[in-house]
Amino acid sequence: MPTSGSHTSPRIVHEIAELKAAVRAARAAGRQIGVVPTMGALHEGHLSLVDAARQDCDFIVATIFVNPTQFGPGEDFSKYPRTLARDVELLSPRGVDLVFAPEASAIYGPEHVTKVILDGPALSLEGDARPTHFAGVATIVLKLFNLVQPDRAYFGRKDFQQAMVVQRMVADLDVPVEVIVCPTVREPDGLAMSSRNVYLSPEERRRALSLSQSLSLAKQLLARGELNVATIQQRMREVLAAADAEIDYVAICSSTTLAPLTHIDGPAVALIAARIGKTRLIDNELLNEGTPDGPGKGPAGPRKG
Amino acid sequence: MPTSGSHTSPRIVHEIAELKAAVRAARAAGRQIGVVPTMGALHEGHLSLVDAARQDCDFIVATIFVNPTQFGPGEDFSKYPRTLARDVELLSPRGVDLVFAPEASAIYGPEHVTKVILDGPALSLEGDARPTHFAGVATIVLKLFNLVQPDRAYFGRKDFQQAMVVQRMVADLDVPVEVIVCPTVREPDGLAMSSRNVYLSPEERRRALSLSQSLSLAKQLLARGELNVATIQQRMREVLAAADAEIDYVAICSSTTLAPLTHIDGPAVALIAARIGKTRLIDNELLNEGTPDGPGKGPAGPRKG
Repeated sequence: MPTSGSHTSPRIVHEIAELKAAVRAARAAGRQIGVVPTMGALHEGHLSLVDAARQDCDFIVATIFVNPTQFGPGEDFSKYPRTLARDVELLSPRGVDLVFAPEASAIYGPEHVTKVILDGPALSLEGDARPTHFAGVATIVLKLFNLVQPDRAYFGRKDFQQAMVVQRMVADLDVPVEVIVCPTVREPDGLAMSSRNVYLSPEERRRALSLSQSLSLAKQLLARGELNVATIQQRMREVLAAADAEIDYVAICSSTTLAPLTHIDGPAVALIAARIGKTRLIDNELLNEGTPDGPGKGPAGPRKG
Repeated sequence: MPTSGSHTSPRIVHEIAELKAAVRAARAAGRQIGVVPTMGALHEGHLSLVDAARQDCDFIVATIFVNPTQFGPGEDFSKYPRTLARDVELLSPRGVDLVFAPEASAIYGPEHVTKVILDGPALSLEGDARPTHFAGVATIVLKLFNLVQPDRAYFGRKDFQQAMVVQRMVADLDVPVEVIVCPTVREPDGLAMSSRNVYLSPEERRRALSLSQSLSLAKQLLARGELNVATIQQRMREVLAAADAEIDYVAICSSTTLAPLTHIDGPAVALIAARIGKTRLIDNELLNEGTPDGPGKGPAGPRKG
């Protein structure tokens, strides 16, 4: 695929030594390094992270690695879409300098025994539903940070709790990386972009709209003055039930701590996990913005652009 | 205390921001940065690590922090010796540039929830006796590495399993630090130097010699051709029992994996933990050197000096 503008195709690197050498050269040249960690199967959500990185940094690394340790038994690790060639085509015009796409064996040696675990924001919601998920996420993200040593790393707010876990891990372990959380990108009809949307049949795709519709309703109810969480959650559940979505959770939490709320009296976030057919989808919306920290707000630090 | 040679007194820093600024300046000046993490109560063992660091690096940071999370309930956290002024006096003539001595509140904020945990080499021996110990060690070491971002870090082989855990963690998490493990420093009569030796009464100090004597016996038996681990361990236990040492463990393990051995047919290490009165001491000796990796060997990488 031809590149557009001034950008050239990214260099594709599979080996750690090659990644390190390339990043070292970029750093020696005084470049600001941004990393966009992904599991591939890219969509406009991921590409918006690349765009954000390009605003702040002048050497952009996208990592593509379907990390086995963040999938639980019976989850979709083996069928998770792997589309490297297409991913690289999508990244090329967006100005990525390097794509790091390692084999699992390069990332987890046979003697690997170390994990990063968190309590706090990692325990509820996705942590309940997927008990080993965030240890897998925190561990791979820390490894990628150590391999790339970026100045900044970009995550989507679509995975609100994941972004919060990464921010917490970075703060707790003094990781010298600035974490920037970017807004969720949605389809024109409101469905949050997700690599798992490809699992949906046309009929399921319509029913999947109930997640974003339910979140929009929560925002409307709040705008009309409804502050009672139980009331809002009940209305959200009705929207999901009408679409025959199998609810995993419908939660309204503090957007800074993820503590569950009974009454909305500060920065809040509504979060949903639900199964449409066999496909588990998550989505969230900020309900009461203006939070001073946490992944609720936009960029977590100063931006150039 | 006057400094000797060309060295000046180290700068004492308690705040993270000040540490980071100093290290950043050293790095910008092209210095190689070495860190010696300690809990203070320094002795010649620690100082030998500083000497090793000085061989390889030209900006030496010693950290002094009695890390609460590596002590279990009922252990000696509160009575652990804290001797900062004397520690700084000892460090001054050895050429340390900066002493980082933070308060616990600067290291563990109220929201801290992240831990680094390991299976493998962290599970047996000290891991059995002190189940939360190595998570505490791995977490604080990683935090210190992230704060200092050293080129090299120096640990004593006296804490053989700790050195192995740190090396494993660094490898597993791709931490960009070279870990160097230095030989145990002993008193003239053989007692391994330890900050906990100050707990010993004169009579206990004599009985404590049974640890190093037991390890010497193991080496002698092996030199005479005894390869059976049960036989060697029995003789070691007899030496300890004769000194009324309360044995926690007497183990002979692979020095590369810490797997217990029944027969010595490769690089091995003998390890002891025993209580002399109320004081728990550990010691170890390599039995069969020439191991290609693991903390069994000396410096883990190329040395300048």
